[in-house]
Amino acid sequence: MDLDFSNITAIGFDADDTLWVNETYFRQAEDEFAGLLEDFETRNKVDQELFKKEMDNLELYGYGIKGFMLSMIESALELSDHRVSTRTIGRILEIGKEMISHRLELLDGVEEVLRGLNGKYRLLVLTKGDLLDQERKLEKSGLMDYFHHVEVLSDKKEINYSRLLEHLEIPVSEFLMVGNSLKSDVLPLLNIGARAVHVPFHTTWAHEEVDPAQHNNSHLTLNRLSDLLNYLH
Amino acid sequence: MDLDFSNITAIGFDADDTLWVNETYFRQAEDEFAGLLEDFETRNKVDQELFKKEMDNLELYGYGIKGFMLSMIESALELSDHRVSTRTIGRILEIGKEMISHRLELLDGVEEVLRGLNGKYRLLVLTKGDLLDQERKLEKSGLMDYFHHVEVLSDKKEINYSRLLEHLEIPVSEFLMVGNSLKSDVLPLLNIGARAVHVPFHTTWAHEEVDPAQHNNSHLTLNRLSDLLNYLH
Repeated sequence: MDLDFSNITAIGFDADDTLWVNETYFRQAEDEFAGLLEDFETRNKVDQELFKKEMDNLELYGYGIKGFMLSMIESALELSDHRVSTRTIGRILEIGKEMISHRLELLDGVEEVLRGLNGKYRLLVLTKGDLLDQERKLEKSGLMDYFHHVEVLSDKKEINYSRLLEHLEIPVSEFLMVGNSLKSDVLPLLNIGARAVHVPFHTTWAHEEVDPAQHNNSHLTLNRLSDLLNYLH
Repeated sequence: MDLDFSNITAIGFDADDTLWVNETYFRQAEDEFAGLLEDFETRNKVDQELFKKEMDNLELYGYGIKGFMLSMIESALELSDHRVSTRTIGRILEIGKEMISHRLELLDGVEEVLRGLNGKYRLLVLTKGDLLDQERKLEKSGLMDYFHHVEVLSDKKEINYSRLLEHLEIPVSEFLMVGNSLKSDVLPLLNIGARAVHVPFHTTWAHEEVDPAQHNNSHLTLNRLSDLLNYLH
């Protein structure tokens, strides 16, 4: 594993669960949703069906809270065979609105790391999801001034990264991506010849999980984001 | 009114209702929605309340079909005092999904104009709304190759345009915007010193309407997009 990052000139940060808490709020929402439907199905079944529904709708809705809300409503109708109450539908709308307007919680070490790298590298935010949602979170974070560029991508596949780096005129070999998702923030970068550091968050959305057998590219995994400063000067 | 566009080097096109049909599908959806709720309220009242709901939710949801679907569901609950059937909620979800996957219908003259300007100007698409939705429509349109840059903005205010032109290194005085919305595609551009051409679509979302008394900047209005070629060489 090549830990020499001396030629790196630009660093991209994922946002959700890398710079700030996100997945936790989805887990809480799923918990409440399962509770709302326990007259109809077991919690485990509700969880499973909601996830299936999100996957079925992913191509149509993309990532983000609004699509999640719509999938919760559709699941509630189906799991209850349309017997769910309209009060419950109303509560699902509220759950989603609470998620959208949730207070932003920065993760440990984020400001320390950005301050440490500031002025030495071109720093970017590369996130996926809902455009307005991500702009709002970045605004709330107070971190805007550290970043040279912010890009909200509709997906984080190899082609999305390649196009963006080309557009920003960043040589692939000089780019390092930092994020919590092996599937979205690490593997596509390694596959296009860039570098990537994995900083796991304590919970990962099932859709972002990858089979360890599927990747044999070595990469650096950090327990804490602030450890990144040990590898970059 | 200065109709000399000889110093223009870059032209931005709005997308919805400028390059392709969009508003028509919202009108059709609103019609069906009003029909679904006619047991509870008059069509006119349903229309009014849905629009109010969309405006209340605009800051939270932004523009696009998913937010429209969520606002329809919330309105249905409120207008019926939660007596609406869950089948109707299911139908609202279907209406939205049909909108998202609707066949794309290019407006008259679009290809002719883009072919005519191709190679002579830097051509951009500047649209607002849902990122994935707009990317999908552009893909379906087959127009991608004409454009040097596509930007999906979370809003189309003066600041959004100024930032983007700066980022793309396009001098404001060399930029011409073309679109169907006075509020979003014309007035903010005139206010920052750029140029703009208005090509009205037969129907305009109430939110995009402006009081004629509010603007006294003169601008060119075209009945057909293809007339644009008469002003650009």
